Amino acid sequence: MSAPVIAIDAMGGDFGPHCIVPASLACLAEIPSLHLALVGQTPLIEKLIDRQPGVDRARLQIVHASEVVAMSDRPAQALRGKPDASMRVALEMVRQGRAQACVSAGNTGALMALSRYVLKTLPGIDRPAMMAALPTRAGSCHLLDLGANVDCNAEHLYQFAVMGSVAAETLGVRRPRVALLNVGTEEIKGNQQVKLAASLLRQAPGLNFIGFIEGDGVYRGDADVVVCDGFVGNILLKSSEGLAEMVAEKIRDLFSRNLASRLLGAVALPLLRSLREELKPATHNGASFLGLQGVVVKSHGGAAEDAFQSAIRRALVEIHENLPQRLHGRLEDLLL
Amino acid sequence: MSAPVIAIDAMGGDFGPHCIVPASLACLAEIPSLHLALVGQTPLIEKLIDRQPGVDRARLQIVHASEVVAMSDRPAQALRGKPDASMRVALEMVRQGRAQACVSAGNTGALMALSRYVLKTLPGIDRPAMMAALPTRAGSCHLLDLGANVDCNAEHLYQFAVMGSVAAETLGVRRPRVALLNVGTEEIKGNQQVKLAASLLRQAPGLNFIGFIEGDGVYRGDADVVVCDGFVGNILLKSSEGLAEMVAEKIRDLFSRNLASRLLGAVALPLLRSLREELKPATHNGASFLGLQGVVVKSHGGAAEDAFQSAIRRALVEIHENLPQRLHGRLEDLLL
Repeated sequence: MSAPVIAIDAMGGDFGPHCIVPASLACLAEIPSLHLALVGQTPLIEKLIDRQPGVDRARLQIVHASEVVAMSDRPAQALRGKPDASMRVALEMVRQGRAQACVSAGNTGALMALSRYVLKTLPGIDRPAMMAALPTRAGSCHLLDLGANVDCNAEHLYQFAVMGSVAAETLGVRRPRVALLNVGTEEIKGNQQVKLAASLLRQAPGLNFIGFIEGDGVYRGDADVVVCDGFVGNILLKSSEGLAEMVAEKIRDLFSRNLASRLLGAVALPLLRSLREELKPATHNGASFLGLQGVVVKSHGGAAEDAFQSAIRRALVEIHENLPQRLHGRLEDLLL
Repeated sequence: MSAPVIAIDAMGGDFGPHCIVPASLACLAEIPSLHLALVGQTPLIEKLIDRQPGVDRARLQIVHASEVVAMSDRPAQALRGKPDASMRVALEMVRQGRAQACVSAGNTGALMALSRYVLKTLPGIDRPAMMAALPTRAGSCHLLDLGANVDCNAEHLYQFAVMGSVAAETLGVRRPRVALLNVGTEEIKGNQQVKLAASLLRQAPGLNFIGFIEGDGVYRGDADVVVCDGFVGNILLKSSEGLAEMVAEKIRDLFSRNLASRLLGAVALPLLRSLREELKPATHNGASFLGLQGVVVKSHGGAAEDAFQSAIRRALVEIHENLPQRLHGRLEDLLL
């Protein structure tokens, strides 16, 4: 394989090209084999590149796209009304083989809709899923779906479990323990979809399905892959982010109450800062779109530069591991 | 009204009477107007009372019940197979007017099933809901349902919103801001149930419905009452507990790495301990069962003595505020 190219939606995210261009250039400098295509408004991108010294232009293309998908656009608007959006042009590059992955910090719903439309799903997959890693006591846990599919039947959950297991292996987990998120661990617990999905998963050959997991089990590290519908996954992820932010704020407050606690805080807060970063997983790691005929990684809309770099690195791993092809092979064994 | 009696299921919870009897006696000593009925195996309860000096037996009854609902019993088993279970006898006391509330730390599913069977729901209510307070940046937020109903339609969510609003007022919140938990705040976001429930709630007179709230908004304190189905509520609550435990553990680890951090920890950890307690809301506050013809408060199964006392205090507030009657009145206005 020639050196992989990653197509970057340079216009997406809350901070747009002002965050994404420098983050991309930093990755380019750091990883000598990486080639990037920055997709978006050429004059603006050029201006931002000019600010950085020593950019290796031989590994950097700029691809013009005249439109931008706004964070507030509905997926249908992005799909029908913006044929020359940077997000779409980046995905088209993957479809055409001009890039091996697309990374965007833009509108999640639009990215999912455009990804499905442009790249298509793998055979046997009804809906792609979004997967990200949460920190746990034991290390980390891959959670899917994170919001792409708010209504799921048992078959969808089954497909997510298979995809999550293969993707976790790709990311370095050996024989991933796969669990279904539920309100209890006994067989009788849960709604119909979850119970039926469990009975399908118990029969799946080669899958290390360990049964149901509850919300607290996720953070205990009881599973490597946790499967749920996109409604539940989104609520779990965002409430965890909200709680982590609240804890960080309360710790700051605690150490600013009086002189003694302020002095203590001056020493303790740097220790606690790393913890805070670790607790914002969705902000600091990319989320993979699984089940597409191509690699798509979503970076958090409010992501800082280092977070966008994590998303690029994740895309690179998925390219090297040939994730879509591996998923396709595994799905053929299990689904077709 | 004569002094209220609270019927305590003395046998429930992970630690059973060894936790519940002392906790009950401590409450009895602390609140001079409180009368308690300890329901369960008389010899064991008597033995535990004898260990405590100065118990005011004039305000304490012991009511014998020969059976115990196990934490692993299915609701149907508890309902059909154990007519003399302590949980059921306590609920019967409420139905008969011999007690004004029931407090149990036992099997949640069984308590809900028995409560519905023994006390019946209020007119217009299909399903009772379970509500508890979470800590937020702004104070606290009442979340329901927490697991009693894993499948809910829009009508159920609407009923939960009305009940949650009235219950929050009872607990001291003026004109509670009521929100529906969703994967986005725009009108087009979410599943069918949530969208339909929102359109019903927008038309509910006298309800301060503020629209959708996302997971992070819950902890930001953007609403006073947050409504969701029991599947989502249970996952949110338990994953938050799991995350809070993980944070507490990581903070301990952080302060035990080397001599300097251990010394720092010796001073900082007591400060952080209160935070940890605050972050375990379900363990430390009771959860109210709303929509029944009587007051039922569930204490966490793994609750310590002080947590069980919180549950008793919560029951007392609901008795004084006449919560079931207030709910009935409000529901008549809005539902019937």
